[in-house]
Amino acid sequence: MLITITTDFGTRDGYVGTMKGVIAGIAPDVPCIDITQEIPPQDVRSAAYVLWTALPYFPPHSIHIVVVDPGVGTARRPIAARTPWGTLVGPDNGIFSYVWEAAPPAMIVELTNPAYRNAAVSSTFHGRDVFSPAAAHLARGVPLNDFGPAVTDPLRLPTPLLTITDSAIAGEVIYIDHFGNVITSIGRLVWNGSLLSLDPAFGDAPAGIIHASRVHVLVGGRDLGPVRRTYGDVSPGEALALVGSEGLLELAVNRGRGAQTLGLTIGAAVEIALR
Amino acid sequence: MLITITTDFGTRDGYVGTMKGVIAGIAPDVPCIDITQEIPPQDVRSAAYVLWTALPYFPPHSIHIVVVDPGVGTARRPIAARTPWGTLVGPDNGIFSYVWEAAPPAMIVELTNPAYRNAAVSSTFHGRDVFSPAAAHLARGVPLNDFGPAVTDPLRLPTPLLTITDSAIAGEVIYIDHFGNVITSIGRLVWNGSLLSLDPAFGDAPAGIIHASRVHVLVGGRDLGPVRRTYGDVSPGEALALVGSEGLLELAVNRGRGAQTLGLTIGAAVEIALR
Amino acid sequence: MLITITTDFGTRDGYVGTMKGVIAGIAPDVPCIDITQEIPPQDVRSAAYVLWTALPYFPPHSIHIVVVDPGVGTARRPIAARTPWGTLVGPDNGIFSYVWEAAPPAMIVELTNPAYRNAAVSSTFHGRDVFSPAAAHLARGVPLNDFGPAVTDPLRLPTPLLTITDSAIAGEVIYIDHFGNVITSIGRLVWNGSLLSLDPAFGDAPAGIIHASRVHVLVGGRDLGPVRRTYGDVSPGEALALVGSEGLLELAVNRGRGAQTLGLTIGAAVEIALR
Repeated sequence: MLITITTDFGTRDGYVGTMKGVIAGIAPDVPCIDITQEIPPQDVRSAAYVLWTALPYFPPHSIHIVVVDPGVGTARRPIAARTPWGTLVGPDNGIFSYVWEAAPPAMIVELTNPAYRNAAVSSTFHGRDVFSPAAAHLARGVPLNDFGPAVTDPLRLPTPLLTITDSAIAGEVIYIDHFGNVITSIGRLVWNGSLLSLDPAFGDAPAGIIHASRVHVLVGGRDLGPVRRTYGDVSPGEALALVGSEGLLELAVNRGRGAQTLGLTIGAAVEIALR
Repeated sequence: MLITITTDFGTRDGYVGTMKGVIAGIAPDVPCIDITQEIPPQDVRSAAYVLWTALPYFPPHSIHIVVVDPGVGTARRPIAARTPWGTLVGPDNGIFSYVWEAAPPAMIVELTNPAYRNAAVSSTFHGRDVFSPAAAHLARGVPLNDFGPAVTDPLRLPTPLLTITDSAIAGEVIYIDHFGNVITSIGRLVWNGSLLSLDPAFGDAPAGIIHASRVHVLVGGRDLGPVRRTYGDVSPGEALALVGSEGLLELAVNRGRGAQTLGLTIGAAVEIALR
Repeated sequence: MLITITTDFGTRDGYVGTMKGVIAGIAPDVPCIDITQEIPPQDVRSAAYVLWTALPYFPPHSIHIVVVDPGVGTARRPIAARTPWGTLVGPDNGIFSYVWEAAPPAMIVELTNPAYRNAAVSSTFHGRDVFSPAAAHLARGVPLNDFGPAVTDPLRLPTPLLTITDSAIAGEVIYIDHFGNVITSIGRLVWNGSLLSLDPAFGDAPAGIIHASRVHVLVGGRDLGPVRRTYGDVSPGEALALVGSEGLLELAVNRGRGAQTLGLTIGAAVEIALR
């Protein structure tokens, strides 16, 4: 049994430490693992992506607290969801959307039971007062349906753009990482140097196999050429496209910062032209 | 049993990892939890605030190492203090002042016993050589008075400003968080939309209850209006005053950075005018 | 048993959290400790220094994952090395060089056995797919030589510059920490106020004892005077030289940032003049 924590709280203020104190008081032997506390403030979409990349690597009995919560204290519901990738605890604002595409929830409940909240619940810090106690009680074995009523209409983010035609695969930037590497919605790709297999991660686009000689990656009017295997396949400072560690098309600059060099932000269009 | 660590060491250098190595060598099964390693360098006052917010949420048998220590290697004493909020380990420079207001120490000792220090003690890294071994030996059950002589005159920070008259409540900024939210010394407030209850967190100002219609929050000549319940009660980009998660008056900008927008730094004056 | 993690992955993206998920799936009860995830990107030399400072403070049965890996996905070998300071797991790019100066490896192997890798190995995230599973299986007791063939020619970084003559000790900057303190290759020094003992940490320079009155630290044409005991020995804002917590000559500004004030970067020359 373990609990992970993902937030936009940063690591400066002791907010996440406080959450771990609450958990230690309820479930003393359950370790807490940070996924990241540095989701860009209130960026639900980046959080959804990070969860989608990290959660499949955790044991399926893990409990994952996620607090990127611009609506804290308003009517948005606090929820918990049991999925094949673990039990998710956080606000009902779409943050779990990408996980749910891959690991559909078996049950979602609203966290209303005051027995599993802190005695005093602030309007601004549900990470401490609602989500951490819920996760700790889940870790102690409290059944999910004790926490509150079922939720059947959870909020979902729009599916990332991915359209495929005979002449092109079109997608969008969905995440930019610490190195400035640019992750797109085009994938899940498997690239063996001569064939590019496409098995969409999001949505219903058809899968397919494409010969390497037909592939050119286009971004902002710039042709990045074929898909490469790794950063070191081009010279330092040179831009490239590759299949990233999640099987998504990634745009990068070897030993540089792709997002800056290519002038890309989340939502920007990316295309693979097929000749 | 658990040990927390709070420092201004940052997370870049391996200093905090080294402290955890020392602890693992002495008390292998005791987990270490980061509160934060990003206290602004040598900012004892911000550290005192963060401890005051986080420690009440930890089990009372916890041990808390705190190293924000501009006087390392000089005559300032290394101390440990037993309090209702856990055992505190760190320099005698006022860092525990705010905790002690709420949870007065039952016993304070100077950490002089060489048996509970590293074999070699550097002049510049007492976190590794003095405080971590002390905390680990405390976690193993060594009694507090084995560490050194009692301290009866620990250094204390000035109590944060809070004055109350018939026409105004005056306080000061005591902390600015990662989101740019501005925390003041005015509290502990409970706000239910029509009544503002004041139960001072620091010092001896009288408690009281105030009708909402009389309240206007003033900062830098700007009237932020009444106290709100949460950030989402105003439009994105708009400034507001609310009762923060610690029960203190907080100044913020919804989805923005209050400290920058309002031009506030630690120590700046804040007033609640009562009409 | 514990596993540490040191990378240049930063803490924003969930990469390190994902590694901990992989470890939790293989070796559920083994705690993971962060040394740092903020090595400057691809800076193998800074990583080598941080490891050299932190590892001697961990129990010798610890397992240390290190991923600063500009060559990921190219021909560089993934390796594991048993040393008196624990078992090291990471790329064969010189990153362990400084540790090996102090704690020579008894055995090094290449991590080729697919039984101890993830089922799918990406080209860009060996931290998740190769190094974390290897460390977790090591923690479960798999013998080192089950992982792959012996490596007898590991890559090593050049030894840091340190030359000693009758009139001077010359070294270079090898690290700059979070506070802007500048660490040099001159040491391991022991300074008692009147005598400076030199016990080289790197390379074969002869040890020696020097009278304090002969010592002047020179950097960029600037005389920092004698070696001091701690930061507080000079006024705030004043530059000084002292023996840092690792026994190396350190250049700093009391309550300031030495690297910026003194205009120093890694590799810059530093000299102790002897009169």
